[in-house]
Amino acid sequence: MMKNVEHIGIAVADLAAAEALYSALLNTQPYKRETVESEHVTTSFFQINQTKIELLEATAEESAIHRFIEKKGEGIHHIAFEVADILAEMQRLREAGFLLLNETPKRGADNKLVCFVHPKTANGVLIELCQEIG
Amino acid sequence: MMKNVEHIGIAVADLAAAEALYSALLNTQPYKRETVESEHVTTSFFQINQTKIELLEATAEESAIHRFIEKKGEGIHHIAFEVADILAEMQRLREAGFLLLNETPKRGADNKLVCFVHPKTANGVLIELCQEIG
Repeated sequence: MMKNVEHIGIAVADLAAAEALYSALLNTQPYKRETVESEHVTTSFFQINQTKIELLEATAEESAIHRFIEKKGEGIHHIAFEVADILAEMQRLREAGFLLLNETPKRGADNKLVCFVHPKTANGVLIELCQEIG
Repeated sequence: MMKNVEHIGIAVADLAAAEALYSALLNTQPYKRETVESEHVTTSFFQINQTKIELLEATAEESAIHRFIEKKGEGIHHIAFEVADILAEMQRLREAGFLLLNETPKRGADNKLVCFVHPKTANGVLIELCQEIG
């Protein structure tokens, strides 16, 4: 079950500039920065009620965020749904015909296990499932 | 103040097919369809806790959704934040240098007054402000 829109990920070219802009837009400050070395990204988080806005800047050319910006420009990159049991949810989606981008959950930002659903099976939308690591 | 991520809008080419797909993905059914004649769109809504997923299909070639899909393909179209006072929020954003796409709030889907912030002033993200019509 999808419990909540946990966050919305936005690909940006310049994290410091985007932090300043989103601070003005959302009228609140980012509460943390975190680099995820394995994904070659630095992230910055804003909290709006139950949902986070996650700005993502690539730290290397092999980053998915770098490729996304090269192809499509800056913009909304993914929607992340919080789930209670990521393994069960991955199994449910696999059986429903969705293509998962990772076969086992991987470690994401913000103390989460994550799995992505391929945008080609979701009307061009990159969907993330995430579960807090207890 | 941004109170909540009220909904995420997703541009789709075929609403019936996308409704079936998102019903499977989100494991819940859409709770309503609504056509907004002035915007040339038919929308379908799913509720995930405090946030809605809004699928949007163009009903005419002059629809912004039609142009979006022509240019970028299907995918996430906008993020909508619920605000308590849309006029005050529009004024705040104008003064902070954001470009608004409409100078006065307009009637959107789901009994809302809405205003859009130009993506060129928000890292490529189309931001909607919305306020429930009381």
